[in-house]
Order: sequence, then C-alpha cells, then structure tokens
Amino acid sequence: MLPYKTVIKLDKKACTPLYIQLCNQVIQLIKCGVLAPSTKLPGTRWMADTLQVHRKTVIAAYDELMAQDWIEVRPAKGTFVNGSLPLVEQQPISGTGLAEKARQKAGFSFIQRKHLNSRDTEFPRKGILGLDDGVPDNRIAPIEEIARVYRNIVKKSYNRRHLSYGSIYGNMELREALADYLNDTRGLSTSPDNILITRGSQMGIYLSARLLLAQGENIVVGETNYRSANKVFIETGGRLNRVRVDENGMVTSDVEALCKKKKIRAVYVTSHHHHPTTVTLSAPRRMHLLELSQKYHFAIVEDDYDYDFHYCNAPILPLASGDSGGNVIYIGALCKIVAPAIRVGYLVAPKDFVDEAARLRRVIDRQGDQILELTLARMIRDGEIQRHSKKALKIYHARRDLFCTLLRERLGKYFEFRKPEGGMAIWVTLREGYDWEEIKAEAKKNKLKLGGYCGDEDDTIDQPYPGLRMGFASLTPDEIKEAVNRLETTMKFLEQKVESYV
Amino acid sequence: MLPYKTVIKLDKKACTPLYIQLCNQVIQLIKCGVLAPSTKLPGTRWMADTLQVHRKTVIAAYDELMAQDWIEVRPAKGTFVNGSLPLVEQQPISGTGLAEKARQKAGFSFIQRKHLNSRDTEFPRKGILGLDDGVPDNRIAPIEEIARVYRNIVKKSYNRRHLSYGSIYGNMELREALADYLNDTRGLSTSPDNILITRGSQMGIYLSARLLLAQGENIVVGETNYRSANKVFIETGGRLNRVRVDENGMVTSDVEALCKKKKIRAVYVTSHHHHPTTVTLSAPRRMHLLELSQKYHFAIVEDDYDYDFHYCNAPILPLASGDSGGNVIYIGALCKIVAPAIRVGYLVAPKDFVDEAARLRRVIDRQGDQILELTLARMIRDGEIQRHSKKALKIYHARRDLFCTLLRERLGKYFEFRKPEGGMAIWVTLREGYDWEEIKAEAKKNKLKLGGYCGDEDDTIDQPYPGLRMGFASLTPDEIKEAVNRLETTMKFLEQKVESYV
Repeated sequence: MLPYKTVIKLDKKACTPLYIQLCNQVIQLIKCGVLAPSTKLPGTRWMADTLQVHRKTVIAAYDELMAQDWIEVRPAKGTFVNGSLPLVEQQPISGTGLAEKARQKAGFSFIQRKHLNSRDTEFPRKGILGLDDGVPDNRIAPIEEIARVYRNIVKKSYNRRHLSYGSIYGNMELREALADYLNDTRGLSTSPDNILITRGSQMGIYLSARLLLAQGENIVVGETNYRSANKVFIETGGRLNRVRVDENGMVTSDVEALCKKKKIRAVYVTSHHHHPTTVTLSAPRRMHLLELSQKYHFAIVEDDYDYDFHYCNAPILPLASGDSGGNVIYIGALCKIVAPAIRVGYLVAPKDFVDEAARLRRVIDRQGDQILELTLARMIRDGEIQRHSKKALKIYHARRDLFCTLLRERLGKYFEFRKPEGGMAIWVTLREGYDWEEIKAEAKKNKLKLGGYCGDEDDTIDQPYPGLRMGFASLTPDEIKEAVNRLETTMKFLEQKVESYV
Repeated sequence: MLPYKTVIKLDKKACTPLYIQLCNQVIQLIKCGVLAPSTKLPGTRWMADTLQVHRKTVIAAYDELMAQDWIEVRPAKGTFVNGSLPLVEQQPISGTGLAEKARQKAGFSFIQRKHLNSRDTEFPRKGILGLDDGVPDNRIAPIEEIARVYRNIVKKSYNRRHLSYGSIYGNMELREALADYLNDTRGLSTSPDNILITRGSQMGIYLSARLLLAQGENIVVGETNYRSANKVFIETGGRLNRVRVDENGMVTSDVEALCKKKKIRAVYVTSHHHHPTTVTLSAPRRMHLLELSQKYHFAIVEDDYDYDFHYCNAPILPLASGDSGGNVIYIGALCKIVAPAIRVGYLVAPKDFVDEAARLRRVIDRQGDQILELTLARMIRDGEIQRHSKKALKIYHARRDLFCTLLRERLGKYFEFRKPEGGMAIWVTLREGYDWEEIKAEAKKNKLKLGGYCGDEDDTIDQPYPGLRMGFASLTPDEIKEAVNRLETTMKFLEQKVESYV
C-alpha cells in the first residue's frame, strides 16, 4: 500500500476544505500514475486515522471522487480506482515542447531568442533618470479625474448595462465624441461609423496589417522606422520595403520607383513627426504620396501618434484629411495625451474597412473596456482632455526648449540634432569618434538610462538606429538639467578615453 | 478666381482659431485639386474683406501655409500655391477599395458579409427579457468596489509609475495573486512566471492559436463547439477537425483516430462544462486526452471559462492540474466572476510558451490596463473577489434550480434538457415538430430574446446548433418566472398553429 501519510499533505489552515484537498490529491496520484486503475483504496476509517482527520472528511472525499468518476465501489470488495481509466506511463517533465513548436513556425521565428526576465524591473530604479523614446510625464496625467469620472459613472445603476458585452466597435459615446474631436482638431470629415476604438495605436497598426497584408505581400516603410510597427508587419507575414527618409520625411520618389517594380499593398507613414527622426513629411511629398496611392492602389497607414504635440506652427493636417479616395487608414491614440497605460486609441477608415477591422478585433479580444471608454468620452465632451492637452503642450514646449538649449551649449561638440517641431523626443546623431553602445554603457554607470521605454526590454529586429531618440517630456526642468549633467560627465569621460589612445 | 466666399466657410463660434480654419480649408482646396499648383492667391486685404475677417487673420493663415510649404511668395508677383506640388486629378470618391481587398485575402474570407448596423442597440431594449448564452448578472457585479479600489490606487503618487509602459506579461502583483488563487482553487502548481495576463479568455485563445497553428494545420474541436473559438482558429489559418461530443464530453477515441490519420497540432476543450452542451469531460476521457497529447505531441488548449460556477460536487480539477508534460495551455478569465466588460484573463503555460505569447501580445496591443490589473490583484489578495464569487455562486445556484424546475413543469412537453452541474446556461433541445428559428421569431413578439449575447450580432460560421443555450444567471427570480411565462405563451401559440395544420 502507498505511504498515504507521506504522499498526502493536508493543510488545516488553507481555505480549501480538507475533503477537497484530499480528493484533489488522490486525483493527482491517479493522474500521474502513482495510483493505477483498479488499485484498492484503504477504508475510510484507516485513512482517517492515518491522516488524522475526521472520518466524515474521508467519506466526503470518497463521495466526491465517486461523483467525478475517479473511483468506484465494488460491492463486498471495497473501493477501487476506476478500472476503466487508461494506464499512464509517467513522462519526464519537459515543458518545452510547445514554445519550440511555436518558434519554428514561420511568421514568428523573427523574434530573437534571448533571455527575458519576466520579472524585469517595470520601472526605472530610484535615482536613475531616463532619456526615453519620448513618453509623457505620468506625474501630470489626469488619472485622478479619470478615476473620479469612472466612479461617478458606475455609481449610476443605469450604467451597469455597460458591464455586459457591448459593441465590438467600441463605446458609441466615445466614437461620437472622437468624431467631433478629430474633425475639429485634424480637419477630418469623419463620422462615428468610420471610427473603431482600439487599444492604443498598436492595435490599430496590428488590425490594419492583418487585414492588408497576406503572407509575403509588400509594405513600404522608412529606412528608419518605428520598430514596433515593423514588428507588426513582419509578424503578420508582410515583407518590408525600406525607402529613404530625409529632412522632408519619407522620399516618395523611392515609393514610386518601388510601385513600378512590384505590387505594393500599403505604405506606413508617421507623417507628422517621422519616428524616429521627428521630421515632418513635406507638403509636396504628402500630395505625391496620396497621388501614388490612387495610381497604384495601395493603402496608406498613417500613424499620427503625437499630433497633439506640435510647438511651432499649427500642426500640419494629416493625410487622412485630404484623402478623397478612401485609401488612408488613420491611426491615433489618447495614450500620449493621457498616459501610455490608458490604452484607448482609434482607427479611422472607410466604413467597410472599419467593419472588417471590428470583426477581426472581436476575434482577438472581443471588445475594449467600455466603462473606461465612456469615461474618456465624457471627458472629451466636457473639454477636460483638451484642457489637459493644452496644459501638457505648454509644459512640454518649455521642456523641449530647455533641453535643446542645454544640449546645444553643453554637448554640441559631441552631438548633432535639429530642434524638433513637435513630439516628445529629440533625434540625436553622433559626431565622429563615438559609439552609442559605449555611451549607453557609460551613462548607465552615471545613473542615466538612454533609449527605449522605461522598463522595456530593448530588443531590436533592425540594425541599430543611426541616432538615438532622447525624450524630454517625462522629465521636470530640474531633472533635465541633471540628465544633461550626467550626459556631460559621460561624454567627457569618453572623450578623455579617446584622447588617451591618441 | 475662385468664389472664395462660397468655398470657404469660417465658423466664428468654433474653438479652432479662425486663421487655422482658413489655413486648413485652403489646404483642402489644394489637396483636392481645386487650387492647382502655381495658382495665384488673392491678396490678404481682399481676402479679409471677402471673408469678413480681420486682415491679421488672413496674414496668420498665409504665414501658416507658408511654414507648411503649401504656398510660396514670388517676389514682386504675389502669393502662389507652391509650384512644386504635384498636379492632382480629382478622383471619384469610392472608399470601398480597402475592405474589398481585405476580404479577398485568404484567412479572412470566412466572414459572412451581411449588413451590420454599427449603431446596433448595445443593450436589450426596455421590457425585453433575454435568455442569453450564459452571462453573469451585471446588477451584482462588484463594480463599485473596483472603482473604489482603483481610485485609492491612483490617489497614491507612488502608483503613477503604473501609468507608463509596463510589463508585457501583465502586472506582477496580479500574476502573483493569480498564481496563489489558481493553485488554491484549481489544484495547479504554477508560479507567476507561467502566467500571462490577457484580455479575457478570448485573447488567450487567440494568442494560443496564432502560436500553435500555421496555415492549414489541424486543430481538433467538438462537433458543437464554442463559436468564438472556432472563429479564432479559422482566422489564424487553422483547419477545424470536428469530433463527437456526448454525455461524457468530447469523444477522445475520435481524437485518437484522427491522430493516427494526420498531424494534429492542438485540441481545444472546454473540459469543465462543454460549450454549448454544458456536459463535463469524464475522468477516463481526461486521462485519455492527456495520454494522447503525450503520445502524439499535440497541445491541449483548455478553456476553463466558468470553473468558478459549479453547483453540485466540488468542481472537477482542470486538465492543467494533472499535466506533467507541459502540454496544456490553461485559459481562464475574471470576466465571468466580475463582469464581461472587465476584460482581464490569464493564460497559464510552460514558461517558454508564456514568453512567446507575451511577445506576440506586445505586437497586438502592447499591454493590458495595469491599474485595472493592480486593482483586481488587490481585490484577490483581500479576498473580495472570492467573497463576491461565493455570493454569486449561491445566487446563480438558486436561479438554476428555479429555472430548471419551471422549465420542466411548464415546458417539458416541448423541450429536453439536463440540469447542468454548473455554469450559467442550460442546453435545451427540441422535441419533434418545432423549429428554433420559428420559436425565436415568435418569442420576439412576446418580448423574449432567445440565444446570443445581449446586443451581439448573431453571426454564425457553423451550421446552427442542434439546441439552444438558455442563460439563467443574468435574470432575477421574478424575471425568470416572467421569461418562462413568455416562453410558454410562445410555445402554446406554436402548438396550436401546428395542430391547426393537422
């Protein structure tokens, strides 16, 4: 007989009743082959004594096991493990099979395997400053207002209907509020029917890519391009065609040359401030790109990730505002205005494309968080989001100016950059003799994190960027000064090192 | 010259400044070809008079247009539309191209095209009762507690770090809380490293399918099966292989026969209560399925969507609890306990599979709502979710009993069903002579909605189910009585109709 006292461990303090614990452990023993089919079980009295529990507990456990078909009573013989259960040979614990198979699959093999600590520090550690990819400052995010409005909404029993399954297109109030907001701020002429609520821009890009690109089909992107977008296109089976990006944005004559050579399904542009270089697509190129999309029948996926942050002139209207042929899919999000973690975005496109995207979205995660969506709708209607946006714009404007001035004055001998007209980051390239990886490593010693999102593993599928984005929006003026100090210390150290070699 | 007074409409009450309105409208005119390249623009004074605005407004607009490269000043000649812009031929507005292409793509063509009103009523209209697919009652959802905890979290400035980009695996506190919760309630022996936070079960299924199934690869599902899951498998390119489902759940000998014939990549099971028929997968079949997965190296995708609602015995432990070979991907969600709109779920699997799933998830929508995740983590730690779950279980138990009793007594001559051991719906099949479509149509006249989720368009990719799920959990006892009344009225009317034909 099994040493039941050893193999069964009951915890009288656990919140699972003892009889359930016993029952489950017997099932485990059966499943892993320790208790084979038709094995006789000890009587309830013996078991109770052995395990030091009340006999009723054992009886309840046996009843439960019987009800679940794991054991059977053979009259006048006793209780046995169900004889009709299949025999189990114990297998070595491997647990690696699934992912191995998954990795071998085409379409997912692009992902570099490297150790990924899933307990990765989610936040910059104390005392460390980061010049990130360009993210908003959480300290000014209107999250308390969101929580307040959210709570007021759920307090009304009428709003409980929003707790059920809802529209796969997203909350209608938000779609209506966004239609007005986008028409007013971006010169679109759209209606709620053309809007799908997504989870951040990321989902907008994903949905578009899945719908537009079949395995091996061509999409055009900038030679430097937003990496997260490139990842999506590769994951969905697309083939990247890279074209030059200069000081006027994507070189559209390159796009034209490609169109003459092969079938292009889509062009992905960050027209307002190209990611990563922050340049704006010029007016002639905008026109040219729209013209090409008509001529060669490709879709333009316009990712307008930081439209609301433009410091110089008025922001330039998106391509989507001038699109008469229904070829532009316009993607944006409230994440940059509110906070990255508030993942509410939108996809604006011709209605039938929106319908398809909604159906795909349903397959992926059914729907968004309706109450959060409703919360944001109310805040747009009340002008709270707009007020916050204005406030943030002013703050970031000052931070950009400060950072650019300091960078020019103190680090101009090492770095080249153009003051960006908008956005939350500066695109910095190196003068000769230095190397970003070395700078990053040395900066780290000075408690300065360069590049990437906070806490994000820094995986790349491309060659490294020729420059580095330095985000200024998430740092206060004092922090900006301190970050520049640390950067200066870093560069001076490296400079001396270089000189000592000479 | 253009009739500027007619084509340009300025709204002095709009919150967009007048000069921006003017600027944007001129851009539109350029973009759509009305103002061709090198067209001379009127002087600012004339324009100001014509549009009845201050001349400074026009100057500001022209400056803006200049800054954006749309227009140019030719010395001593005047202001012109930028001559280097490409000529635009005006295109007819079609707007249908994109979706048409999307539909033509393999992998997405399965979607039935039918008119879909995106303003579809999201909620059952007043006075209408619904016997739905089996969803929780929103009126008892702990949403006010969620809002309270959420607000307390964001009030602490320390928690603002959660507003930034965070782990693609989901909030660590929630993963830890869930590991304990799942180990305690489901007999798993898992750790946070094995848990990915998803958006409801739906995303868990989607991620698994994308990782496991390449184009044309085989997945086994029940002959009747959860439709949303089937949709995912088809969308991700898988081939459905249907096996029988009887009163002991999926017929595993059918699975074995299939494995002998072809390479099976995965089997999808709703082991606890098969969807739609609510039967539980029997112990011998569970063992057999696990054994087959070892022998034929396929993954088991175990969707345990309503584990927490079992009324008879203790719930049967999931397959994942006995899995020694790392072949089970266990999927669940808090949606059924809390509310469908609170889309937080989990995927439990070997660590390397979780890593791959997290990387794919990152491509799709980057991450979940960290603050909501943290909120739920705290509520699990404090036992609030468990208390609510117990309360709901008791309420639904009584509703099941009431509904089954009334259905048996009043409608037993028309319907066949087995009292389900758990879940939120009853699987009802028809005795001879009736037809579900007819019943649904007639019931609608009596303000009773049968089948489907509330407000969900009722699209199907399968043949219709041979039965109908009737959800009881979302109705109060009085509503259940009223629903049965209406169902009785419906059936009696149809019975007389049938008799009148005889």
